[in-house]
Amino acid sequence: LVNDRGDVLARTSMKTEAERGPTHVIQRMCDVAKKVCELNGCPLQSVVGIGIGSPGPMNIRTGTIINAANLLGWINIPLRDQIRELTGRPAVLQNDANTAAYGEYWVGAGDRVNHLVLLTLGTGVGGGIICDGEIIQGHFDNAGELGHMIVFPDGRPCKCGQRGCLEAYAGGYYITQEAVRLLSNGKGRELRQIYKQKNRIDVPDVIEAAQRGDELAIQLWDQACLAIAISCVNFQHTLNPERIVLGGGIAAAGQKLLNQIIDKYNPLVWKLADDRPKICLASLGGEAGAIGAAGWFWHLHQQN
Amino acid sequence: LVNDRGDVLARTSMKTEAERGPTHVIQRMCDVAKKVCELNGCPLQSVVGIGIGSPGPMNIRTGTIINAANLLGWINIPLRDQIRELTGRPAVLQNDANTAAYGEYWVGAGDRVNHLVLLTLGTGVGGGIICDGEIIQGHFDNAGELGHMIVFPDGRPCKCGQRGCLEAYAGGYYITQEAVRLLSNGKGRELRQIYKQKNRIDVPDVIEAAQRGDELAIQLWDQACLAIAISCVNFQHTLNPERIVLGGGIAAAGQKLLNQIIDKYNPLVWKLADDRPKICLASLGGEAGAIGAAGWFWHLHQQN
Repeated sequence: LVNDRGDVLARTSMKTEAERGPTHVIQRMCDVAKKVCELNGCPLQSVVGIGIGSPGPMNIRTGTIINAANLLGWINIPLRDQIRELTGRPAVLQNDANTAAYGEYWVGAGDRVNHLVLLTLGTGVGGGIICDGEIIQGHFDNAGELGHMIVFPDGRPCKCGQRGCLEAYAGGYYITQEAVRLLSNGKGRELRQIYKQKNRIDVPDVIEAAQRGDELAIQLWDQACLAIAISCVNFQHTLNPERIVLGGGIAAAGQKLLNQIIDKYNPLVWKLADDRPKICLASLGGEAGAIGAAGWFWHLHQQN
Repeated sequence: LVNDRGDVLARTSMKTEAERGPTHVIQRMCDVAKKVCELNGCPLQSVVGIGIGSPGPMNIRTGTIINAANLLGWINIPLRDQIRELTGRPAVLQNDANTAAYGEYWVGAGDRVNHLVLLTLGTGVGGGIICDGEIIQGHFDNAGELGHMIVFPDGRPCKCGQRGCLEAYAGGYYITQEAVRLLSNGKGRELRQIYKQKNRIDVPDVIEAAQRGDELAIQLWDQACLAIAISCVNFQHTLNPERIVLGGGIAAAGQKLLNQIIDKYNPLVWKLADDRPKICLASLGGEAGAIGAAGWFWHLHQQN
């Protein structure tokens, strides 16, 4: 529950129980909205409106989920209108990566700079773009799919069907998959031990092994940071943002990650103009999407 | 002289005589404005306003040219306000590559699609971005420097100080420079003859030699088309435009260029969503910038 200054008045969550299908999940969404109001001692009917951040692809204008790949049966679901009907409140739908960017822009690391790019570095790599205080949605509502920019042509294959995507180098899934694959080449003494112990490798293992000098871990982590730095140069020359914000699980590596990226970025970028964005860490953590969905509702509400 | 529907009512041009410095050039700009009105039989005082498209870097908000690299003495020149004073008409300043994009969006190849990217393929590579009918300027007014996206990390050096820029592969200056440099490697029988005849190689020479099977020309032209195709994939995932428009001198190669780029683009791009932009040729030629500057004036004028 978020007021018009971006303060979180109450927070709660509920299991989606997605296996029971969209109708059930949408009812759960309304239940959680009701519950969070109760926590703050107000009825749901007193909220000005509801901002929904959802995975896509979606049609933002009609408020419809076209096909949520990880959720059973979510094909052409008019999510926004069903939430409106069930709650009796105005509602807006937006891509969840975009609402995270809007949240960081509104009250997070961006703190009202007008031009901001958020890179979400998790299992995959997502993102969102704010230009002049507006979310860039694009013609097909698919803007900000920043993990699928090609940074190394003809590079690692990505599940999306492309090669050399940012995500294929900086996404946790790919970093750890590549670590396991390359262990057979004889490198990576420390990573090999970790793999023997727990039969898997996680991103923090790679980061820590790299810090202790493990050759394979250094190679993988260097590539990840270089891929991110190249994408920052490309954001600079396309969108020319004031700030590039790094969020998601991998950004938990904090200043270590940031310093490495900036060390790669500095020698890569042009010297023609002094238009470098500040690259910094996200500040809202996992709540960015929810706060931003509320902020986006307030933004559209104030325009009407 | 352009009306509010984008019709060109009269056209003329004048030498800038840039060697005589900014004050003189600005007077010439006012003279040419007066002259184009006379050609249409109307006084300058009857025009609603003036749109100025200029090379940058610039401060769009204050209407100031910060430093026009190719023009003598243009450092911190308040171009917009001086034009306003000398003509007595309202004026707006905008980057000339952005106005070209706006022109194509307004009455050219984009013809009012809401999301469009223009790539200008000339001696260098420039561009402009239209999102939701607005020019994307960025925080430092430097958005749309599309020639300096890195497409081949650690690739050819670019005059901007980076390596692997789109411009270093698809800009005429670099294509022809690289042709001359590589002739010494024994490839390029046909290009060698051309170079012997005229002691230089031009882009049309490369395109024609490639069509006739010259190995070196094919290599250079393929790389140029691949670099452009990669940048189109990256536009798709960042800005998600409905249309990508190719303009500038090299786009004069027309359908040949377009087919080659699309042939490279199709196998590169993801299969996850059906959000491919239409890639097409610009339609306003060298007038795009002037028409777009007028269109941008009308756009801002209607907002006030």
